[in-house]
Amino acid sequence: MDQATQHLYMNKGISEISYSSNSSVQKKAIYKTKPVVEEAVLDVLSKFYSNTTISATEKIQSICVADLGCSSGPNTVLVISDLLNTIYNKFRESAMVMPEIIVFLNDLPENDFNTLFKDFKSLSDELKITNDFGPCFIAGMPGTFYGRLFPSNSVHFVHSSYSLHWLSQVPTGNESNKGNVYIAKSSPPSVVEAYSKQFKKDFIAFLKCRSEELIKRGRMVLTLLGRRSSDPTSKECCSLLGLLSKALNDMVLEGVVEEEKLDMCNFPVYFPCLEEVKAIIQNEGSFVVNHLETFHVNWDGSDSSEVGLMTDTLRSSNLIANSIRAISESLLTSHFGEEIINEVFVRFGEIVEEYVVKEKTEYTNLVISVTKGDMI
Amino acid sequence: MDQATQHLYMNKGISEISYSSNSSVQKKAIYKTKPVVEEAVLDVLSKFYSNTTISATEKIQSICVADLGCSSGPNTVLVISDLLNTIYNKFRESAMVMPEIIVFLNDLPENDFNTLFKDFKSLSDELKITNDFGPCFIAGMPGTFYGRLFPSNSVHFVHSSYSLHWLSQVPTGNESNKGNVYIAKSSPPSVVEAYSKQFKKDFIAFLKCRSEELIKRGRMVLTLLGRRSSDPTSKECCSLLGLLSKALNDMVLEGVVEEEKLDMCNFPVYFPCLEEVKAIIQNEGSFVVNHLETFHVNWDGSDSSEVGLMTDTLRSSNLIANSIRAISESLLTSHFGEEIINEVFVRFGEIVEEYVVKEKTEYTNLVISVTKGDMI
Repeated sequence: MDQATQHLYMNKGISEISYSSNSSVQKKAIYKTKPVVEEAVLDVLSKFYSNTTISATEKIQSICVADLGCSSGPNTVLVISDLLNTIYNKFRESAMVMPEIIVFLNDLPENDFNTLFKDFKSLSDELKITNDFGPCFIAGMPGTFYGRLFPSNSVHFVHSSYSLHWLSQVPTGNESNKGNVYIAKSSPPSVVEAYSKQFKKDFIAFLKCRSEELIKRGRMVLTLLGRRSSDPTSKECCSLLGLLSKALNDMVLEGVVEEEKLDMCNFPVYFPCLEEVKAIIQNEGSFVVNHLETFHVNWDGSDSSEVGLMTDTLRSSNLIANSIRAISESLLTSHFGEEIINEVFVRFGEIVEEYVVKEKTEYTNLVISVTKGDMI
Repeated sequence: MDQATQHLYMNKGISEISYSSNSSVQKKAIYKTKPVVEEAVLDVLSKFYSNTTISATEKIQSICVADLGCSSGPNTVLVISDLLNTIYNKFRESAMVMPEIIVFLNDLPENDFNTLFKDFKSLSDELKITNDFGPCFIAGMPGTFYGRLFPSNSVHFVHSSYSLHWLSQVPTGNESNKGNVYIAKSSPPSVVEAYSKQFKKDFIAFLKCRSEELIKRGRMVLTLLGRRSSDPTSKECCSLLGLLSKALNDMVLEGVVEEEKLDMCNFPVYFPCLEEVKAIIQNEGSFVVNHLETFHVNWDGSDSSEVGLMTDTLRSSNLIANSIRAISESLLTSHFGEEIINEVFVRFGEIVEEYVVKEKTEYTNLVISVTKGDMI
């Protein structure tokens, strides 16, 4: 176990037990994306530091990395620990002068930065005082990543995991998406178009801002939920929120939820396919695509290769319901009120339990690794 | 009223009414220090940006400023608003290209960064989107300022207000400071020496770290509580905490507080004189002193020139007791337990009320403005 990772596990505030299913899914994705992140970070090091040799008087540049939409919790620490270990291992084996590193943790101002900074305290203190590593400074940068976050030409590496499928707002023109909280087979084409248009607009804004902030030839690795199919209404990306819509529709039929309220509830998320993302990047023009891939993680956080790991459908469906609750509770509460929330998720869990025995239950993850092009 | 300041007052979370006496004292100090901060910031601009002319293609450097020990609340927003207004006014009148600005807000990881980021949200959003200003990015940097906080040679201007009289720890060797929470006339010389030694050690560590982080010829303005007298036991700096010691001693006599506990209670603060600070800066050698001054603010937040403003001694003593409570409650609670805290401050308020009618009740503030020297 690496030194930085050891700190993660030694930190008493963070225990494996406290992992929600939501963070298990993301943790699995972080694990699967690790080689792509490593390649990008090592590329940054080789481009900017390959000629540095040990010299006490030589001024070393500092490396600036940013994790966008970091949230708070053990996965954030895991991402940064992995990243620092990659850098430290490289410098250790090459006997080069260890650079100073500044890490920016970004999320909306409403994120729990207090908890985040406490989670990082022991890791950060240790990294500052150890003789082996150069100093590492961990800062928080509140704000939306659909706008500018950092000074121009100041960041070497950008990472974002499980954030970019969240849109900046609910797409407009969704009035006709009756009975659905996301795109569904029954959604009219205008709804599908509104969602895809909003994603395109947001993703372009994201790319433009990052291209201003990244140093030329800097790298970026993005992981988000998406689909393999070119059809935005395919089961692969729509079935899970479809089950949530079903729970809410059942409550409409029983008069517990107002039909009109459900009709007006649309989640600000979008699950694109790889070709869609690739086309946006190429049209925007600031980045060269290095690597694109998709992989699957089961809704309950296991992956398809782990046969028999999650044969208990009740446990599995509880994990899935809790993971969706974790990311949607505040949204549903502000829309429908607090009093119905427990019932929504009890019903949702039951529907998921029926579903998991007969259908594939996988998230499709997209991994996108790009370089800021020389054209700028 | 300047644009940035307007935002401060428009922010609904921040009202004049919510100001505690503690923040009123600091607010007054910020107001009195403003010309010194302005001079230093304008000096930074003239050194690093005087040759910049308007050119769409020309790359502009970004300015990096840091507020160390910023706490959270309206005074933090006030400091940063003033600072940004100074920069914006200068660039506006000179028609130079507006630089990008990154502001680091620093305090210990236990500080309430969530509130801080919310306080800054409207100011920060506005500064990002306005066409008139260049983008301004406001980040949080958790950690002690007695250690490294930023990459080498990366900061143009450091500001710190009302933080540097807080020591990194209670001085060791204070066992014999019986019945006092700070230096008093009755303290043996070893106690005075332990306090002054700890301050020296901490202040040197602070200077060394900042000299690594500041860009050559970068500036720093520090405001802290101190004294004019060369005597560390003088009334000027010891009387207020002496009154708190008196309240606690009265409670020892009545058996409410254990004598041993009081003997072991020492505040981790030190109020140096200007000569002491000057000598440390000169011996440490990284900084050239530009300006040193002292000024007074009354314990209740008024200043001596405002005759008749605070003739109500009851109100005045309440304000003073509350201001000391705000900064010392958690310290006293962890030392003596929660149950006695209310009584301590009721008694302290009464003792202060008797005192204010017959004695001078002024904090001595030290302002230190320095430049990172060329010798490094």
